[in-house]
Amino acid sequence: MTGDEAEIGAQLERWVRAVQRRDLAGVVADHAPEIVMFDVPPPQQGVRGLDAYQETWPPFFAWLDAGAVFELESLQVTAGVDVAVAWALLRCVRPEDFAEHPDTRLRITFGLREDAGRWLVVHEHHSYAATD
Amino acid sequence: MTGDEAEIGAQLERWVRAVQRRDLAGVVADHAPEIVMFDVPPPQQGVRGLDAYQETWPPFFAWLDAGAVFELESLQVTAGVDVAVAWALLRCVRPEDFAEHPDTRLRITFGLREDAGRWLVVHEHHSYAATD
Repeated sequence: MTGDEAEIGAQLERWVRAVQRRDLAGVVADHAPEIVMFDVPPPQQGVRGLDAYQETWPPFFAWLDAGAVFELESLQVTAGVDVAVAWALLRCVRPEDFAEHPDTRLRITFGLREDAGRWLVVHEHHSYAATD
Repeated sequence: MTGDEAEIGAQLERWVRAVQRRDLAGVVADHAPEIVMFDVPPPQQGVRGLDAYQETWPPFFAWLDAGAVFELESLQVTAGVDVAVAWALLRCVRPEDFAEHPDTRLRITFGLREDAGRWLVVHEHHSYAATD
């Protein structure tokens, strides 16, 4: 693992903790203005721009408040000189759904670019696999 | 757009055409041995390795043969010196589902690394947004 990969891994773990404590400023702290997120809910064309990205989080925090967990299970980072990609598996489920789908994982892919010594998230893709 | 971004865009458009003509060799031609794909169907932990990746395609080709389309609508590439990320929207739907969900798009994210002058795909994430 390169130094950048360790740094990005630590940054994304901080992001998970910011989500866990409903810290909106922390969630958006390392995101680029041009962020494009393919989220679990619509819109089909993705959430585009930092303002739109920020607006998705309060409803998700409310969903978490109903008792859901958001726990990082695994994270893999591939960093180059100035662009990086990372993918993660998370436990992200409401208690009432856990019994029926204990193996369900949220998958998140991150794309990042280097900017003046910082790594900024330019893309996120969140999804669940289809269930039978 | 950089030269690498144009090159990667052309490569991913060739990949879409390989899928369209059910050309398995073409689909896997530019993939790294360590490819990790988060696919629409399970497994929850992702499809890991080139052999497992390759095995996912014949069932999808059979699904396409029932009349589904697989058409690229938009593609955005961010390429660095040696790592790149790209995201795409595609029309990928069966005729019987189109009437009810005309706006549905398949979202695909690609992660690539440079290897001896070639760009190899190390990660793919395929999903549909949840429907209401």
